[in-house]
Amino acid sequence: MLTITQINEIKMKAIEYYDKAHIVLTDDEKNDIEVADFGLGDTQNTGLQLVVYINNDRYCAKEMVLFPHQTCPEHRHPSIEGKSGKQETFRCRYGKAYLYVEGEETENPSCKTPEGSEEFYTVWHEIELYPGQQYTIASDTLHWFQAGGDGAVVSEFSSHSDDDSDIFTDARVRRITKILQNM
Amino acid sequence: MLTITQINEIKMKAIEYYDKAHIVLTDDEKNDIEVADFGLGDTQNTGLQLVVYINNDRYCAKEMVLFPHQTCPEHRHPSIEGKSGKQETFRCRYGKAYLYVEGEETENPSCKTPEGSEEFYTVWHEIELYPGQQYTIASDTLHWFQAGGDGAVVSEFSSHSDDDSDIFTDARVRRITKILQNM
Repeated sequence: MLTITQINEIKMKAIEYYDKAHIVLTDDEKNDIEVADFGLGDTQNTGLQLVVYINNDRYCAKEMVLFPHQTCPEHRHPSIEGKSGKQETFRCRYGKAYLYVEGEETENPSCKTPEGSEEFYTVWHEIELYPGQQYTIASDTLHWFQAGGDGAVVSEFSSHSDDDSDIFTDARVRRITKILQNM
Repeated sequence: MLTITQINEIKMKAIEYYDKAHIVLTDDEKNDIEVADFGLGDTQNTGLQLVVYINNDRYCAKEMVLFPHQTCPEHRHPSIEGKSGKQETFRCRYGKAYLYVEGEETENPSCKTPEGSEEFYTVWHEIELYPGQQYTIASDTLHWFQAGGDGAVVSEFSSHSDDDSDIFTDARVRRITKILQNM
């Protein structure tokens, strides 16, 4: 579990990346940066920092930071009670992001999985996103992503976001950091 | 009606503002910048430049440019066939944007309407948006917006966008520039 001090250090580091991308945030947004460690306690390899601009029942927009080679683990957004799962568009703003989705396996992919978690990464169709490039992920589709060596800032535009319903390939994953932060 | 030369000049000028906001666009996006003159042929006062990142049946994201004191005229997004009209969140990225919505009239508002169009601006509750600030407009709510003296770059996150269904207070308004550009 991350300590408050660790979380604050990660937030400060995330702000450096928002600055590099020239993303202007309010003080409240900086204070509220979400640090997701996915319950694995290894944020250097597996983690994500994000600001949620808006999330209502119709649409959602977030600004995500990935530190160099940091990975958001493989997951999908399933349909719930007959309603299609979250569909999302990733747009790279800074650095480089490698996105992996279902489809033909890319030979010699640019990324490695976090060590010890190889079995929880099953889709290997690689999409490279430079600043200004974007990709839309259909709902209920397995995907994961990782930053290149300079880290990445990635905008996410999507339908309503409900982290609780995400299904991760790695059953150890928990999306609880937000709760701990607010205790 | 704008000529191709005029449209290209406006696009080049819009690119300067995207650059000021450090928004990275692909060459295709730069070519496809939409120049909306709203059929009034007076883009210096009434107009909008925009890039549509994504617009599907669930969500939409755009990056808009307003030149100094340029105005997007008053309109609303009505419900259609029982489906709620477009809801949208404006987030200022560069410059300053003044948004006017239904509600208590602001005394001494910062903006004037485009000359000769005063009667077509009926809502005067002012919201000032500096970079990093945002505001969400409920569906079917009258609104209009204008840039400050340095122009503005504004991100729009929303539900599905369908320009054809917009209802403008000024019945002369036509949203046809896009079609002319593609002829």
